[in-house]
Amino acid sequence: MSDKRVVIIGGGFGGLTAARSLGDLETVLIDRTNHHLFQPLLYQVATAALAPGDIAWPLRTLLRGYPHLRVVMDEVEAIDREARLVRLRDSDAIPFDALIVAPGARHAYFGHEGWEQFAPGLKTLTDAVRLRENMLLAFEEAERRRVATGIHDRLTFVIVGGGPTGVELAGALAEIGRKAMGPDFPALHLENMSIILVEGGPRILPGFSPDLSATAAAALASKGVTLMLNSRVSEVRADGVVIGGDVIRSTNIIWAAGNTASPLLASLGIARDQAGRIPVLPDLSIPGDPWIFVIGDAAHCAGRDGNPLPGLAPVAMQQGHYVARLIREGIAAEQRRPFAYADRGTLATIGRAQAVVQLGSWHFSGLLAWLLWCVVHIFFLIGFRSRVRVMAEWIWYYFTFKPGAKIIYTRTRQSGEEGRTPPADSPGSGSRA
Amino acid sequence: MSDKRVVIIGGGFGGLTAARSLGDLETVLIDRTNHHLFQPLLYQVATAALAPGDIAWPLRTLLRGYPHLRVVMDEVEAIDREARLVRLRDSDAIPFDALIVAPGARHAYFGHEGWEQFAPGLKTLTDAVRLRENMLLAFEEAERRRVATGIHDRLTFVIVGGGPTGVELAGALAEIGRKAMGPDFPALHLENMSIILVEGGPRILPGFSPDLSATAAAALASKGVTLMLNSRVSEVRADGVVIGGDVIRSTNIIWAAGNTASPLLASLGIARDQAGRIPVLPDLSIPGDPWIFVIGDAAHCAGRDGNPLPGLAPVAMQQGHYVARLIREGIAAEQRRPFAYADRGTLATIGRAQAVVQLGSWHFSGLLAWLLWCVVHIFFLIGFRSRVRVMAEWIWYYFTFKPGAKIIYTRTRQSGEEGRTPPADSPGSGSRA
Repeated sequence: MSDKRVVIIGGGFGGLTAARSLGDLETVLIDRTNHHLFQPLLYQVATAALAPGDIAWPLRTLLRGYPHLRVVMDEVEAIDREARLVRLRDSDAIPFDALIVAPGARHAYFGHEGWEQFAPGLKTLTDAVRLRENMLLAFEEAERRRVATGIHDRLTFVIVGGGPTGVELAGALAEIGRKAMGPDFPALHLENMSIILVEGGPRILPGFSPDLSATAAAALASKGVTLMLNSRVSEVRADGVVIGGDVIRSTNIIWAAGNTASPLLASLGIARDQAGRIPVLPDLSIPGDPWIFVIGDAAHCAGRDGNPLPGLAPVAMQQGHYVARLIREGIAAEQRRPFAYADRGTLATIGRAQAVVQLGSWHFSGLLAWLLWCVVHIFFLIGFRSRVRVMAEWIWYYFTFKPGAKIIYTRTRQSGEEGRTPPADSPGSGSRA
Repeated sequence: MSDKRVVIIGGGFGGLTAARSLGDLETVLIDRTNHHLFQPLLYQVATAALAPGDIAWPLRTLLRGYPHLRVVMDEVEAIDREARLVRLRDSDAIPFDALIVAPGARHAYFGHEGWEQFAPGLKTLTDAVRLRENMLLAFEEAERRRVATGIHDRLTFVIVGGGPTGVELAGALAEIGRKAMGPDFPALHLENMSIILVEGGPRILPGFSPDLSATAAAALASKGVTLMLNSRVSEVRADGVVIGGDVIRSTNIIWAAGNTASPLLASLGIARDQAGRIPVLPDLSIPGDPWIFVIGDAAHCAGRDGNPLPGLAPVAMQQGHYVARLIREGIAAEQRRPFAYADRGTLATIGRAQAVVQLGSWHFSGLLAWLLWCVVHIFFLIGFRSRVRVMAEWIWYYFTFKPGAKIIYTRTRQSGEEGRTPPADSPGSGSRA
């Protein structure tokens, strides 16, 4: 099987792990961006704690030393199962004998896509930089209004979704807003800034045990975050959100309320679940096509308890490793052992010196959990350089409360040229090259 | 005079220095962005060597501990000399008794503003990130085309303007393109990539002595940069530049051929020089208005030799310090000693281990000059944190040839949402807040 041509769609945790595990098979890795992104720390870019370059690495640089592997920066338009081709927007279609589909997910608005412009989500570096600048500009506007009118109107941030992303954003916003921004905005009374975390279910962090949810809720409350449980957003507008008939006025709404897998999956011609994921067989292949695999956030893969595995980096990485081995060793469908996820625990941080950890039946929280969280995330960062940079940032922030990335540059107060970055299809963009 | 209200327009080297030298006078500093930018290293962001956050700092953070000073992020629309008001786009007009105008300059196209879309310049962080992504996308496109057609078409970069910015860009591009990008793009023959530096005059670095210009030219040539002297660009198009009737095909054109001072200066109602600068009196005030000063790149201030002082950080900083003292001490126009620029030398780097230094009559170049350049720039960077970060980046790059910021995120290969950053006036921008 060593003449097998393998194509991987997506350079996330699953795709990158697979690419590195395929040995000397001729492989093409396709990604829309030029980098692998460490999504678990994306919220820290969105809250100005880390810089984009601290958590992203060019795929080509990561995959130096894999002579059989080619990286293509392009967008996949369709997967042609009959012709065994992956069709791209800008390049010729790429033939495959084995295909690993790992395109990830976007945040979902459940049919209310119009809400995105008022409540952006957090999946890409562009999302994170946009949220960061929205946040920083909100403080600037509040200060400007305060000086103009003399009125203190409280800054209100609304985060929709009580999963790890929402919780981590709320915790970081509370800290940065109350502590780090204070000295920069002396005219504002940041102690009565309000951060509201809206969760549809009865508790935050539903993926964790109830006791850890309670711990996290208490920790957020102590940071001054308002929790709204069993609350559903019925409308998102330019000036706020509507919840159960009440309007919460805010121009800083962040969407962390759910994911939908990449629309690309439609071209596989298989019925998807309500989250847009492909229900895969126990060997992560798709029904009737043993050499096409779907992994990561794009796959609906039942775990031991029958529920689909969560969209976590370890799941995607283990799946990437698993399917790479099946392909590398050319294991026939009937001889494959089912994929089994080895759960090494889940962590979520609520802020400085506060996190929750769930290792099987062992639950704990507080400073120790936070230190473990730091160690684990530093460990999984790629490369000595990033580890040093991020660790240094965290230590610096821990002691100084000065986040390192409070720069606004994609937008200025001027409506002129330097206030914009041209869209990909505009002149000046590399697509002209 | 301690009840004097001072307004400073611009948070660059001149404005920031003035702000820090005004003592306890009530001061307002206005800037369109939220940060002070270390422009001398901007070319390193444009060539992926440094990250934006490494060379920019929030003005509010820099000016903590100045209780009499207020920072306003807004755009100045006009200076009303009669009413003694600075009119802003989003806030109420701000009254002043003394005004320091330090809005800086933009790159100039000498009446060919249409060229900017094909040949962007380098003044802001947004410019730098845009150039960086154009460069990285150009390599991606070349690789894609190479694979699709089998043809090696050489990557051509054209830099218009042989001043320090153009020279530093050309040197950095040659290094990064030939050495750092090679391993990432095995299919490309980067040794025949071409970098063309176009200069209208007879030599590059005209601000330096002829011998240093010759040294710089030789150093660039040794890096494989093609110099075109006495050459004027007659047209810039999407597919290249026209020079003396010949067309140089390139989709990577960078404009470093001249500056024009901020259009805001028009509202002073004083005739400006051909570079849009205000001819100031020896005390840097404007004719007929002893308490309005123009400094930095916006001022046409004659030096000892009668020529206008160059647009350098030290000039702006010394001017900022000088006018702050006049205002702080309330020195009447007739008692003012003229501003005298103390030239502590000029430096320009041509790349790794190669720079030119001019200290009065003392000229030297090579490794020693480069080390001095590094030391001086590290020294003038603001804050321990940035110094450590930038020094670490340089040491890392010196040994590994892996620049630290090769991430493309404001544009992806997808034409979808995450391919763009919204313009300042769009929903989702803080101007809604």
